[in-house]
Amino acid sequence: MKPLKSGAVIGILGGGQLGRMLASAGAQLGFDVSILCPEDRCPAARTAAQHVRSSYEDAAAVLEWARGCDVITYEFENVPVRTVQTLVAAGITVRPGAKPLQASQDRVAEKTFLRACDIATADFAEVNGPGDIAAPLDRFGGNGILKTRRDGYDGKGQLRLEAGDDFDAAHKALGNHPAILEALVPFEREVSVIIARGAVGDMLCYDLPRNQHVNGILQRSVVPCGLSDAVIKQACDAAQRLAGALDFIGVLALELFVLEDGSLIANEFAPRVHNSGHWTPEACATGQFEQHIRAVAGWPLGPVTRFHDAEMLNLLGEEAFVPPKTLTADGVLTLYGKHDAKPGRKMGHLVRRLGPAT
Amino acid sequence: MKPLKSGAVIGILGGGQLGRMLASAGAQLGFDVSILCPEDRCPAARTAAQHVRSSYEDAAAVLEWARGCDVITYEFENVPVRTVQTLVAAGITVRPGAKPLQASQDRVAEKTFLRACDIATADFAEVNGPGDIAAPLDRFGGNGILKTRRDGYDGKGQLRLEAGDDFDAAHKALGNHPAILEALVPFEREVSVIIARGAVGDMLCYDLPRNQHVNGILQRSVVPCGLSDAVIKQACDAAQRLAGALDFIGVLALELFVLEDGSLIANEFAPRVHNSGHWTPEACATGQFEQHIRAVAGWPLGPVTRFHDAEMLNLLGEEAFVPPKTLTADGVLTLYGKHDAKPGRKMGHLVRRLGPAT
Repeated sequence: MKPLKSGAVIGILGGGQLGRMLASAGAQLGFDVSILCPEDRCPAARTAAQHVRSSYEDAAAVLEWARGCDVITYEFENVPVRTVQTLVAAGITVRPGAKPLQASQDRVAEKTFLRACDIATADFAEVNGPGDIAAPLDRFGGNGILKTRRDGYDGKGQLRLEAGDDFDAAHKALGNHPAILEALVPFEREVSVIIARGAVGDMLCYDLPRNQHVNGILQRSVVPCGLSDAVIKQACDAAQRLAGALDFIGVLALELFVLEDGSLIANEFAPRVHNSGHWTPEACATGQFEQHIRAVAGWPLGPVTRFHDAEMLNLLGEEAFVPPKTLTADGVLTLYGKHDAKPGRKMGHLVRRLGPAT
Repeated sequence: MKPLKSGAVIGILGGGQLGRMLASAGAQLGFDVSILCPEDRCPAARTAAQHVRSSYEDAAAVLEWARGCDVITYEFENVPVRTVQTLVAAGITVRPGAKPLQASQDRVAEKTFLRACDIATADFAEVNGPGDIAAPLDRFGGNGILKTRRDGYDGKGQLRLEAGDDFDAAHKALGNHPAILEALVPFEREVSVIIARGAVGDMLCYDLPRNQHVNGILQRSVVPCGLSDAVIKQACDAAQRLAGALDFIGVLALELFVLEDGSLIANEFAPRVHNSGHWTPEACATGQFEQHIRAVAGWPLGPVTRFHDAEMLNLLGEEAFVPPKTLTADGVLTLYGKHDAKPGRKMGHLVRRLGPAT
């Protein structure tokens, strides 16, 4: 595919806040963005040139929509693999393709893929029923996290387990879905690598943010992350191996635990722009949303030079609403246009520039 | 009017690139933006939540649209005053209101208003026919610029005149419209003040850009502008007097000529965000588009702290299109999504960060 020209149409599967910010970034580069999303008033539709309502599973409808676009991308990792495969088989360019979805939708496949890239993960075991829990839990030292293999996000679909807990009840609480038991990782901090890979395989890593979660939901990301150059290089090398192995085009996030001795354990990856990169538009020469659009459009990547130390604070539920918090905050506010402020729901974020980049 | 909450609807009269960038800024703050514009595929409609097609002159249609919005603003100064007056009479909040339109749509009214604010302008004379030219041209030293009183932009609707020229032909070339003859100003440089005035009358000036025009079209703006603090203060004081006298809410631009001795002569003002402020989103804590939205929404103004020295280059006609210029340029690219690249038409701009702010 040749680099897209201004006025070309970029189709995005998914209508959430990531699609919204991608749509705005696409418009800044002169593209028309078309959102495919089943919901009537999704956040992304309100900043995009076009919105087509369809189920992601309706491959025929998705294909019809995609034929009106010059390239397709996605903003969430649970787009059905089969839908993307249908598009690709019909000659549609999808960036990134089906492979990153296959590798990230299932936690067992994800960890297996990471290990094949020589990236360490926590110990894990497949759990197809409550009887599969006791043995690996014992092997992990009597502590672990039980997670559904699919569809978990923001701490949903997971439970801490200890030896002696009621495994039947635990597995039932996760809907008796196929699950994975993961060993606990005694991490000292969490970081992520936001990496962009262009259409010709060139790669750029943003400075790593340090991420702080509360109840499984990202609360704060801060740059710089405070790690040594050597550890940062290891993290970026790992992300490059992953992006290369996935034939990735676009922006990808690799979440990492850092142990006391500086060794790195991958938690998971997201084949898309990421919440922990939301500080990049305000702190860097090129933000992650523009970067993803550039890669998907076949344009050269933009520089990831960081100008500011910065922190990004997620605004959850009612705390996103004015007054008084966001009106008077000394930072750059982004709200996602969601009307239903359920507790814990990501409604917006605030980026505070903390001083010149150190 | 109370400060608007996220999810409120901001209506914008006008669908050009300024409306497009305002719509994106409004979306970033969680607002739904509705564009009123007669054109089918205008730049702003493709980043806004809603687009209503109507003539600006159809006050009834505009009123019906405006009733669905929480506040109305405009992105160009040639919105009919009567239309805005109709809205205001119906109890609609329009920010800024009709007064800045009345004062800026007619070059004679504009200069008269500026002078009433104790802001110097070039000498001028009304020209209602070719017979009105010779005497003032003589008074101005034999040189002047003949401009239509209304609807000129980007150097259109103006002509340089010298003693001995064919005044009949000149006036005819401007369509025999009511005109103004202005004395030439022997300026050393051009600058502009981009000023924001909030709903409670608070004001903030951005650092002044120095502006370079070619053939009447802005080609480049650069900050800092190189003037002394004393001259900059005079320029900001003038802009504050103007914004106050207009009861202005939003962002306003005052274009100034600077003479060799540092004295200032106003050229014109625009009651809206301005091309010479297009570097602000990339170089400042709050860009002019967000600032206008904040003011119109009744939110506190954001800080105008400048982080970078910067230059903004307009991309005209075909030069906006890839490849190669914009793809490889070391700057932040904004394209307006216009498909018809007529020579001289503003198609986009590029902001280059030149180093830390000096």
